[in-house]
Amino acid sequence: MARLDDFARHSADRPALTRLYLTQEHRAAADQLLIWMREAGMAAHLDAAGTVVGRYEGDTPGLPALLLGSHIDTVRNAGKYDGNLGVLAAVAAVAELNRRGERLPYAIEVLGFGDEEGVRFPVTLTGSRAVAGTIAPDALAARDRDGIALGDALKEFGGDPAGLAAVARDPATVLGFVEVHIEQGPVLESRGLPLGIVTAINGASRYAVTVTGQAGHAGTVPMALRHDPLAAAAEMVLAVETAGGAEPDLVATVGRIEAKPGAVNVIPGQATFTIDLRSPRDGSRKTAAAGLLHTLAVIAARRGVALDIQPTHDAPAAHCHPGLMRQLGQAVARAGIIPHHLPSGAGHDAMALAALCPMAMLFVRCKGGISHNPAEAITVEDADLAVTVLLDFLRRFEPVSFAEGPRP
Amino acid sequence: MARLDDFARHSADRPALTRLYLTQEHRAAADQLLIWMREAGMAAHLDAAGTVVGRYEGDTPGLPALLLGSHIDTVRNAGKYDGNLGVLAAVAAVAELNRRGERLPYAIEVLGFGDEEGVRFPVTLTGSRAVAGTIAPDALAARDRDGIALGDALKEFGGDPAGLAAVARDPATVLGFVEVHIEQGPVLESRGLPLGIVTAINGASRYAVTVTGQAGHAGTVPMALRHDPLAAAAEMVLAVETAGGAEPDLVATVGRIEAKPGAVNVIPGQATFTIDLRSPRDGSRKTAAAGLLHTLAVIAARRGVALDIQPTHDAPAAHCHPGLMRQLGQAVARAGIIPHHLPSGAGHDAMALAALCPMAMLFVRCKGGISHNPAEAITVEDADLAVTVLLDFLRRFEPVSFAEGPRP
Repeated sequence: MARLDDFARHSADRPALTRLYLTQEHRAAADQLLIWMREAGMAAHLDAAGTVVGRYEGDTPGLPALLLGSHIDTVRNAGKYDGNLGVLAAVAAVAELNRRGERLPYAIEVLGFGDEEGVRFPVTLTGSRAVAGTIAPDALAARDRDGIALGDALKEFGGDPAGLAAVARDPATVLGFVEVHIEQGPVLESRGLPLGIVTAINGASRYAVTVTGQAGHAGTVPMALRHDPLAAAAEMVLAVETAGGAEPDLVATVGRIEAKPGAVNVIPGQATFTIDLRSPRDGSRKTAAAGLLHTLAVIAARRGVALDIQPTHDAPAAHCHPGLMRQLGQAVARAGIIPHHLPSGAGHDAMALAALCPMAMLFVRCKGGISHNPAEAITVEDADLAVTVLLDFLRRFEPVSFAEGPRP
Repeated sequence: MARLDDFARHSADRPALTRLYLTQEHRAAADQLLIWMREAGMAAHLDAAGTVVGRYEGDTPGLPALLLGSHIDTVRNAGKYDGNLGVLAAVAAVAELNRRGERLPYAIEVLGFGDEEGVRFPVTLTGSRAVAGTIAPDALAARDRDGIALGDALKEFGGDPAGLAAVARDPATVLGFVEVHIEQGPVLESRGLPLGIVTAINGASRYAVTVTGQAGHAGTVPMALRHDPLAAAAEMVLAVETAGGAEPDLVATVGRIEAKPGAVNVIPGQATFTIDLRSPRDGSRKTAAAGLLHTLAVIAARRGVALDIQPTHDAPAAHCHPGLMRQLGQAVARAGIIPHHLPSGAGHDAMALAALCPMAMLFVRCKGGISHNPAEAITVEDADLAVTVLLDFLRRFEPVSFAEGPRP
C-alpha cells in the first residue's frame, strides 16, 4: 500500500494522478517499477511496446512462464489502484518468493502494461496486444490530440516501433496470464467479500441512437399534435433499463443524451442517446440487443418519430479459463473466503491475453464500486489478502490446457 | 404580402432575417414603416422606447384611440410574418379607410413595437410595457452580449431613455388593443381554418430539475445496485408529457436534457432537464404543476435518487377581453369563417397591453405551425382575410368596458 501511494507520484498533475501512455510520467513510473522488480529478484527490462517486463526464473532457467500483471497507465484524475494494484501485488508476491529463496517449477513474468485505458491515443491494449501478437497494423499511426503519432511517442519513450512484432510470445513458452485488479463495481462490497473470481470479461454492444420528430413552440403545439422525439427517447431509455434487468449479469446503460435545439421553450426536433449493453454471454447479449432494438422501433412507430440506430462497437466476451478459475477459487477458499464468481463489466489487459493463453482474474473489493476517480479506495487488509491468495495460488499452480473449457 | 417581402430586407444578415431591438436594421425598418404609415394617412412618429406610432384620427380630432399593431423586431434567422404581419395588416386596414376617406367615431393608432422577442437584451416587451406604463425601472441598465446598455442603444437609435415614463398612456384615452399575429402553432391548419380568436395568452411555469444519483462504470454495476439519475429523469420526462395531456389547452414540455459526465460507458451521476408548463387557466396550471412535482418526488424516492426543482419562471395568463373577442368573432363569422377560439401558447405584446386596456388577438393560420424559422409561411388568401376581418371589425367596433368579463 505504501508503494501504491509512492507510485502515484508519477503523474502529470500532482496531487491528482494522470499517467497516460508513453508520457514522461509513464517513463518515470516504468523506471521505478524496473527498480522494484530487480529488488524482487527479477531480471527486468522495457519491451518494444513500452511494457515493463520482469522475469523470475523457475527451478531451472528458461522454463515456460506464468504471466502476471496489469497496467500502469491511468485515466485522467485517476485512482491509485486501477491497474497499478495488479502489477505491484504481483511484484510483492514474487518478492516474497525471492526473500524465502523459493523457486517454482515454472518461471514467472510480471508485466506492467502501458496502454490499457486508451486515453491518449485512439487505440487501446497496445502493450498486451503486442504480447499476444494481435496488435493492429495501423496502431503506430494513431495520433494523440497534439498530433503526435504513437510510433514517434514510443521511440521517444525508449520503445522500438520496428520491434513490436518480436514482442509477441510463442504460446509454447507461456502457461497463462493471471491479473489481479480492483473490481471497479459494487458487487463484492455488497456481498461483504474481499475477493472474487472473474468468470469472463463481458462482451459489449454499443449503439448511437437518433430520434427525429417535429420541433415546435412549447406553448403553441397541443400535446395531441406533437411528435416529440425526447418523450420518445425517454420511453426508450426506460426500455434500455428494462432490457438490462431481463437476466442476471446483463447490464444496459444510457450514458449520454441530448435534445436539439435544446431550449426550455422549444419542443425538440431531435434527440440522440447512446446505448451500452454488456454480458459475459455473447448469446444473451445478442438476444437482448435484438429485442431492445425491436422495442425501440415499436416505440418510434407508435409515436410517429423516425429512428436511426448505428452500432458503434461490438466486442465478444473473453472467457476466463475454467482450470485457472478453479485453482484461484481453491486458493481463495484456503484463505477462508467464500469463492464468489462474477463477470467483469470493464475491459482489462487479460482480454487481449485471452487470445494467447489461458487467462484468469482475481478481483479485489473496492470502496463503493468507485473507480476512475481520486475517491477509488481499497483496504490494506484486502490488498494483503490478494497478495496472500496470489502467492498461495502460485505455489500450488498446475499448468492447464489452453484447449480446455468453454470458449465463446 | 409584397410589403412583408420588402420589409424583410431590413436584416442584419440578408438573405436571412435577423432584426434585433435598437439595431441599425431595426431603425431602417422603423423609417420604412413611418413612410408607409404616412402614406396611409397617419401622423407617425417614433416614441421614446423606439416604438413606431401612427395615428389615424377619428371623425373628431383627439378622440380616444383603439390601438392596433404588433412588433417589428425578430429572432435570429426569423420568418417574415411573426410580428411584422400584425403591424402591416393594421397599416393596410387604415390605408383602406384612408383611401375611401372613412373616418370612424374613434381614433386608431398603429403600434410597431421593437422588443417583443427579447433576443438582444435580457428584457422583453420594452416597447409595449412602456405604453402600458409597466416597464421595469432597471430595464435601461440591461446589457446586450457586447456590454452595450439598453439605455445607450436607445439613445443611439433615436429614442429617449429619460422620456420612457411619458410614453405610458392614460387609460382614459385608450379603447383597447387588438393584435393580429400568426398562430405559431398547428391548430388552425389542423382544423382547416384561416383565422382564430385568441382566448388568453397562456400563463407559464418553468422549472430547472436536477436529479442526482450514483455515477458508475456501465459494465461493472449490476442493474439492481444502480441509482441511475438519467433513468429516473426519463421516467420524469414521461410524467411531464402525461401532465400536459391531462386536460385540453394544458401543454408541458421538456426542451433540454443532459446527463453528466455524459460518456457512453459511464452510468450518469447527474441528469438535468427543464420543464415548461402552460395553460390559459392559471388554476389549471398551478394544479398541474403541483401534481407533477409530487409525481417527480415519488419517482425520485422510489429510485433512491436526489431531486432538486428550481422554479425559473412564473407568469400568469393574460385574458383576452370577452367583448372584443365577441366582436372579432362576429367579424370572422361575417367573412364566412367558423369562429374558432384557441389559447395562445406564445407570449405577445398584447400580454403587456392587457395591463392597460381591453385586449384581443386574431390569429392567422401558418404553414405547419412553424415559426422562428425561415420556413415560416402564410398564404396570400389568409393574409387578405385577416385584413378584411380587421377592417370589418374596425368599422363596427363598439367600445367595451375594461372591467367587463373574467379576469385571471
